[in-house]
Amino acid sequence: MDIYQFLELFVGRWRSQRSDHQFGEGNGSDVRSVIEITVLSFDDPDLINICQKHGIDPNTAIQPMKMSWEEESLSSNKPKGHALIVPIPDPSSPQKGLILTRQGKGTYELGTDEALTIQTVTSQNAIEERIWYGNPNLRFRVATLLQGDQASDRRVQSSKFYSEIRSTAPKA
Amino acid sequence: MDIYQFLELFVGRWRSQRSDHQFGEGNGSDVRSVIEITVLSFDDPDLINICQKHGIDPNTAIQPMKMSWEEESLSSNKPKGHALIVPIPDPSSPQKGLILTRQGKGTYELGTDEALTIQTVTSQNAIEERIWYGNPNLRFRVATLLQGDQASDRRVQSSKFYSEIRSTAPKA
Repeated sequence: MDIYQFLELFVGRWRSQRSDHQFGEGNGSDVRSVIEITVLSFDDPDLINICQKHGIDPNTAIQPMKMSWEEESLSSNKPKGHALIVPIPDPSSPQKGLILTRQGKGTYELGTDEALTIQTVTSQNAIEERIWYGNPNLRFRVATLLQGDQASDRRVQSSKFYSEIRSTAPKA
Repeated sequence: MDIYQFLELFVGRWRSQRSDHQFGEGNGSDVRSVIEITVLSFDDPDLINICQKHGIDPNTAIQPMKMSWEEESLSSNKPKGHALIVPIPDPSSPQKGLILTRQGKGTYELGTDEALTIQTVTSQNAIEERIWYGNPNLRFRVATLLQGDQASDRRVQSSKFYSEIRSTAPKA
């Protein structure tokens, strides 16, 4: 798509839904969580396990990570979980490559606009995630879920917008 | 920023706020609007006026448009307004260029990931807008407001996430 085609698609009547995120004191009623992202060592058993599952040498990964999250909730049984993020760069062009997760295998590409796009396709659905920084301590993410067996009849089901503020310095 | 630097910034503890947009029947309590985007003819007085203000030949614009919006509201006095969007491509590289609006002058760039980034800087603040399509009838936008007189001490103030569903076919 070039800029002409992109702008042509603007034209029309649209129904718009807007969520506002403020970066001051009180926020709205959206879902809030604390997320902790740590780097995995190359001998981490979870990392080795996920790479073996996909037949990939763990040493070809860059910055393998574990993301743990816990929702803020008044109940004592707070929703929480964790996920692995294992980027495997394309050797000839590291700005793109594979992302291994426990759920499956996706592709990533860092665009010229410094936004990272991750596409994960399974037999039932597809997830597209876009991640970029407002500044080094402010991260934006939009995750879009498409459902449908065939690529041709996939429909966008929902989108989630996250704004994430770093609450400690990055660990070395 | 390359992919290594991008991923390094992931690491740390983050406070996350999430807004969910569903594309079915009932939605949440966010701000909803109807937006209508139409193409302006090159002899449109508003287009000629805004181009003259910036000393730019209106015939160098591509797809000049008018965007009208009206918020859904139970009150009879519904918030509404309109804006002009006048892209002036860089002659040697049309994927980037200027965007003229009545508020000022910004720059645009369509990235390799098919997301359009628009930056508008004024003396008091800066707005960064990212726009991309989930499909030709579903548009996503994130607008981020940065405040501060100097680029060096600009702070991100707020972000707005829009998901927009086309409700009529594009006009030719």
